[in-house]
Amino acid sequence: MDGSKSKQIGRDSVNSAPGFPYFTTMAAAAAACRLLRLAPRRLRSPRHSAPTALSLFPTPLSASSGWRSYCAAAQASAPPPAAAAAAAAGEAVGEFRRRLRVAEVKGGEDEGAAWVGKELTVRGWVRTCRAQRTVTFVEVNDGSCLSNMQCVLTPDTEGYDQIDCVTTGASVIVEGVVASSQGGKQKVELKVSKIVVIGESDPTSFPIQKKRASREFLRTVAHLRPRTNTFGAVARVRNALAFATHKFFQDNGFVWVSSPIITASDCEGAGEQFYVTTLLSNTAEGGCLVNNIPSKDGRVDWSQDFFCKPAFLTVSGQLNGETYASALSDVKYILENCKEDMDFFNTWVEKGIIDRLSDVAEKNFVQMSYSDAIELLIRSNKKFEFPVKWGLDLQSEHERYITEVAFSGRPVIIRDYPKEIKAFYMRQNDDGKTVAAMDLLVPRVGELIGGSQREERLDHLEARLDESNLNKDSYWWYLDLRRYGSVPHAGFGLGFERLVQFATGIDNIRDAIPFPRVPGSAEF
Amino acid sequence: MDGSKSKQIGRDSVNSAPGFPYFTTMAAAAAACRLLRLAPRRLRSPRHSAPTALSLFPTPLSASSGWRSYCAAAQASAPPPAAAAAAAAGEAVGEFRRRLRVAEVKGGEDEGAAWVGKELTVRGWVRTCRAQRTVTFVEVNDGSCLSNMQCVLTPDTEGYDQIDCVTTGASVIVEGVVASSQGGKQKVELKVSKIVVIGESDPTSFPIQKKRASREFLRTVAHLRPRTNTFGAVARVRNALAFATHKFFQDNGFVWVSSPIITASDCEGAGEQFYVTTLLSNTAEGGCLVNNIPSKDGRVDWSQDFFCKPAFLTVSGQLNGETYASALSDVKYILENCKEDMDFFNTWVEKGIIDRLSDVAEKNFVQMSYSDAIELLIRSNKKFEFPVKWGLDLQSEHERYITEVAFSGRPVIIRDYPKEIKAFYMRQNDDGKTVAAMDLLVPRVGELIGGSQREERLDHLEARLDESNLNKDSYWWYLDLRRYGSVPHAGFGLGFERLVQFATGIDNIRDAIPFPRVPGSAEF
Repeated sequence: MDGSKSKQIGRDSVNSAPGFPYFTTMAAAAAACRLLRLAPRRLRSPRHSAPTALSLFPTPLSASSGWRSYCAAAQASAPPPAAAAAAAAGEAVGEFRRRLRVAEVKGGEDEGAAWVGKELTVRGWVRTCRAQRTVTFVEVNDGSCLSNMQCVLTPDTEGYDQIDCVTTGASVIVEGVVASSQGGKQKVELKVSKIVVIGESDPTSFPIQKKRASREFLRTVAHLRPRTNTFGAVARVRNALAFATHKFFQDNGFVWVSSPIITASDCEGAGEQFYVTTLLSNTAEGGCLVNNIPSKDGRVDWSQDFFCKPAFLTVSGQLNGETYASALSDVKYILENCKEDMDFFNTWVEKGIIDRLSDVAEKNFVQMSYSDAIELLIRSNKKFEFPVKWGLDLQSEHERYITEVAFSGRPVIIRDYPKEIKAFYMRQNDDGKTVAAMDLLVPRVGELIGGSQREERLDHLEARLDESNLNKDSYWWYLDLRRYGSVPHAGFGLGFERLVQFATGIDNIRDAIPFPRVPGSAEF
Repeated sequence: MDGSKSKQIGRDSVNSAPGFPYFTTMAAAAAACRLLRLAPRRLRSPRHSAPTALSLFPTPLSASSGWRSYCAAAQASAPPPAAAAAAAAGEAVGEFRRRLRVAEVKGGEDEGAAWVGKELTVRGWVRTCRAQRTVTFVEVNDGSCLSNMQCVLTPDTEGYDQIDCVTTGASVIVEGVVASSQGGKQKVELKVSKIVVIGESDPTSFPIQKKRASREFLRTVAHLRPRTNTFGAVARVRNALAFATHKFFQDNGFVWVSSPIITASDCEGAGEQFYVTTLLSNTAEGGCLVNNIPSKDGRVDWSQDFFCKPAFLTVSGQLNGETYASALSDVKYILENCKEDMDFFNTWVEKGIIDRLSDVAEKNFVQMSYSDAIELLIRSNKKFEFPVKWGLDLQSEHERYITEVAFSGRPVIIRDYPKEIKAFYMRQNDDGKTVAAMDLLVPRVGELIGGSQREERLDHLEARLDESNLNKDSYWWYLDLRRYGSVPHAGFGLGFERLVQFATGIDNIRDAIPFPRVPGSAEF
């Protein structure tokens, strides 16, 4: 990502750098969002669903066609002598098995009709519980999709004596038989033979009640909000976008390289940065004593810090590649793979979002120079809040006018920006005034991608470092890349949270991030 | 990852948290390792390969069967009126196209034989250049695979006048026709009709000469080491392992959730931590004045810090799931997908590594309790450096004895560790002495995965927080997850760098990370 953009995003919200391999943070969203994963579970095996069966260390299980096998070769080779000798001490561990999720039952074209008559176990959280005269309807959601499983209980249901604990937010296991539903909302429901309450939820204090809670409020309970329709759907779409991005690059021969998050280079020039330091660790009773901070002549002595010099959280990571114009194939991916969630956003969050995304995916991109964009804006005779003048950066209102009005929702690439408003590493154009930088603008969000061709010429790069008052010595390795086999190359950064916003219609970027960090708060 | 493990790894080397979507950091490894990506390039089109054609902003191109199309619908819809009106201002951008890589030519079963007679353009770096009487052999590597393309030049080759610049490390574009090779080392070579030197490389100062450089030395030139056989292969295998891990979880219905890297919770109790702070930003001439650090009664005033309280780089991320026993299916993935690289490691880095990995992938896992493991170690009568006694943690020598000797190379899961040596959030077993923690041990590396069932019972968890002298108030949200619909659940962390070590045979973990951070150095 080009530094200027990162910085801007950084001010919106100090973002979580998505870690790997942390697929799900058990501590919070994931624990809430997709639970009950630990139990190796035989598909359609309601007999074994008591919570005591939720063992972390299952004994080996014989092969079953209902299970997915991931270490299938386990039984193929005879144990070597030493292992056989030691076998008394240990048990062999069987293959990986996955549990059945509501998405797999109701997610198909037939919305579950093929499952009618079959036994099923659902594990999830209670969304609502409605008692009628003879039956009680419990909506259970397991996080795998937007749809709940409607569970129908009668006084004959095993475990019905616990019905008072079946409240919003409680976790349950329900077993039963899939039946056609009389209600208009769903094709199938579950006639429950047994219900087990796993974890209760005090209805008087559970923060997320049935009625729609405001986004602002939900931010204060970021550990529980994944259980709502909106944030469950955001999590799934975010996941799909991330994987689609990975897949796109893998399919095209790119190699993923992890970049450091701690840097000693001051990439973007001076300014407020996040220092990463161990110098403040002196833990006197009551907090860190300023006088104990290692110093020399009254100044912080960085030679005593962990990295022996000031180190920062990096603000700049950079993508390698020419693929800027095609990153939006991701959008096509979610339209195909998150249909139910996208329908939800289309209905409840932003009407027309599916059309808008389809437009972006299907229409050709437009490109124009920054100079032409300035001319277009001036010719439009539209009154903007911020001035339009060659040499000034484009503001959000300008960007949105270009993509939304001038080009009717088509994605627009603006290129060749004045060098004064761009970073030192961007390649200078032959006009001496502009650099080969580009921004991709999309409706509603404005800038989604920023990138540039990098300056591959050593002398030009050194000159730009000098002009920008940056210290050439600390860029020795970056300059080396120009000394030894330099090549023309380009990179871009995609604002991943903006992509999530763009794809879901979510207004505030803090709602596109599981655990946003903002000034004054690093909660959760 | 369980905190204890993260911490341990953290001491080996402060690791780069692999960012997303930074597939490749253009600034360094990637720029070195897979270059010349920016040019949309028609396959088999040697006419257009002059460097001036390497434009960042290609004009739209008509459809061609040789190109991969990712925005294929571009031509399907007529432009809307507004766009048509504005079309004079901008040009439409064509679809994404990929260039051909050496891996695609030589990577097949026939090692390129099917390409004989075809025109080809190769872009890469010169590995070696050998002049003979009538011909010159130039080995070119483009980073896509271990194999070079042997390029054969004669004095008739266009660009032959630049031959003095064709030195190790220089970047070149070569065009020619694929021919069967007379040499025994490769099936095909390129009869070069034209060579263009893109970036020179001074042979007297280029740090990586033909002879084998030590790993220690290569660490000091981390920006250039991806151009060596070993580090190019490490990068490709690391990439494959990462993608295989993503894919495994996606295929099994897990949702990737990005976890914050900045935290205000002191997850593992006191100790030296990396503070993340803006309080040191006061940039007086000559450095940060200690007296300018905001303070109150001589102590650092955290209320004036960015997050209004002390914040740290997190040491603990946690995976959700029961899948610990199956993460090694990744190993099967690289054996299939990185065959050439794995052969290289097998020959040059660690003999027998392919057999060892196949063993792990094919043999059943063993599991045993910590208590049984202690007994096994005592009964072995082997003299260990560290004491073996119930209540003490297992050391690397113990772990390796168990997996390598006692179980002859089978992966071993040890479970039910004494609670005193494990973290507060692990579930207490009924014996009151142990917790449901597990470690997966593999040959040579020892602990590869650490995980545990989490304590889902509110009262037990609160008691453990008290016992561990941790402040319950700062864990309010974590406790909430036990108040509202708590569920039995488990998580694990995989030491990704250890997995790379394990898969490649690389000794030092710093060589499994593109840009390692270590005490005293945050270079590159």
